[in-house]
Amino acid sequence: MGFWKSLFLGSESAASPKGLPSRGYLADLPNADENSRIIFSTDRDLDLYELEELCDAVGWARRPIRKVKKAIQHSFVVVTMWEERGARRRLIGFSRATSDHAFNATIWDVVVHPDFQGKGLGKALMKQLIKTLRNADISNVTLFADPHVVEFYRNLGFMPDPEGIKGMFWYPD
Amino acid sequence: MGFWKSLFLGSESAASPKGLPSRGYLADLPNADENSRIIFSTDRDLDLYELEELCDAVGWARRPIRKVKKAIQHSFVVVTMWEERGARRRLIGFSRATSDHAFNATIWDVVVHPDFQGKGLGKALMKQLIKTLRNADISNVTLFADPHVVEFYRNLGFMPDPEGIKGMFWYPD
Ligand SMILES: CC(C)(COP(=O)(O)OP(=O)(O)OC[C@H]1O[C@@H](n2cnc3c(N)ncnc32)[C@H](O)[C@@H]1OP(=O)(O)O)[C@@H](O)C(=O)NCCC(=O)NCCS
Ligand SMILES: CC(C)(COP(=O)(O)OP(=O)(O)OC[C@H]1O[C@@H](n2cnc3c(N)ncnc32)[C@H](O)[C@@H]1OP(=O)(O)O)[C@@H](O)C(=O)NCCC(=O)NCCS
Repeated sequence: MGFWKSLFLGSESAASPKGLPSRGYLADLPNADENSRIIFSTDRDLDLYELEELCDAVGWARRPIRKVKKAIQHSFVVVTMWEERGARRRLIGFSRATSDHAFNATIWDVVVHPDFQGKGLGKALMKQLIKTLRNADISNVTLFADPHVVEFYRNLGFMPDPEGIKGMFWYPD
Repeated sequence: MGFWKSLFLGSESAASPKGLPSRGYLADLPNADENSRIIFSTDRDLDLYELEELCDAVGWARRPIRKVKKAIQHSFVVVTMWEERGARRRLIGFSRATSDHAFNATIWDVVVHPDFQGKGLGKALMKQLIKTLRNADISNVTLFADPHVVEFYRNLGFMPDPEGIKGMFWYPD
């Protein structure tokens, strides 16, 4: 890290329906470009074609926009990350979690645009998401990690197979 | 198996809000007692104290009723199992799943009362739950299994760590 400070400085707008800030920004970016800043948002009203572009950029398989819309609507929390330059805003990160709103949450679809990877932003995005879940009093935060990102999540305090608990996926015979 | 046939014979009541049958029954029970039958339901309006008793019976830690209620409300699907004797009905099994209503579901809190374990009913309950999720067009059915039940789930078509995907849980440092 060191390049970006993952310091959540504040929220700008009114509280979201769940009583969480719907927008905040990361500041202190000692990078070459003083005209940009990184913004986080829990607003789920985003351009789904822009999200598709982001997922394309990391090589994920296309999914029907209609279903993506439904999944976002029925996620418990969505945290997006934006690069803001003057009036222009670009979607550079996405994450969401499903939940029973009481005990458990499961994180899906964590992505940072390749142009912005390796700068601590994935970590900052995940911290925002975890903080949002913890503020909502969720005690059991879970996910299913592809092998190449297990270390990324371990870095953030996630344990694989704690006490022998196994992640399992159903496949029709 | 052989003791109970996991045959879902039909549904008795009107369609549930999601367009799924809210009640059905298992029949063909060649057991000693011809006066009982096993019923499944997706109705989530159940007596939470009866559910607490069921969870107590398998030694699960007590959870605040208020939070259990919230978790059930915000689960995507709840499938319960009942023993019916004449007009009396007893809760003997429970399971639920969270979901984004589009791609992924995660199964939680699968339990069969000890008096009814080892008769194929856990399997029948899980099959009901999976069927309900598949009918709702969910393609990715997941769960986190305690070590002593990994084989139970493997039997049902669940794979641990497919392609190296790891189940992970977040613990505060
Ligand atoms: C995984 C991903 C979100 C990480 O985002 P990122 O912004 O590149 O990560 P960061 O720069 O915040 O990295 C934070 C820390 O994790 C480490 N890290 C990042 N990616 C890693 C990886 N794939 N494996 C191991 N460690 C990793 C970094 O070295 C850094 O360590 P440090 O805190 O010791 O310096 C991003 O690479 C991505 O979107 N990848 C493609 C999509 C994907 O695979 N998503 C996960 C699906 S399960
Ligand atoms: C796990 C549980 C739901 C299984 O229900 P059940 O009604 O006893 O299981 P069934 O009789 O339907 O068993 C179906 C098959 O799984 C096998 N099986 C059942 N429990 C098993 C276990 N713990 N380990 C390995 N295999 C198991 C049975 O032998 C049977 O195999 P078969 O189809 O080859 O005959 C039940 O034992 C239970 O409620 N346990 C306590 C709560 C719990 O631990 N839940 C899981 C939390 S992650």
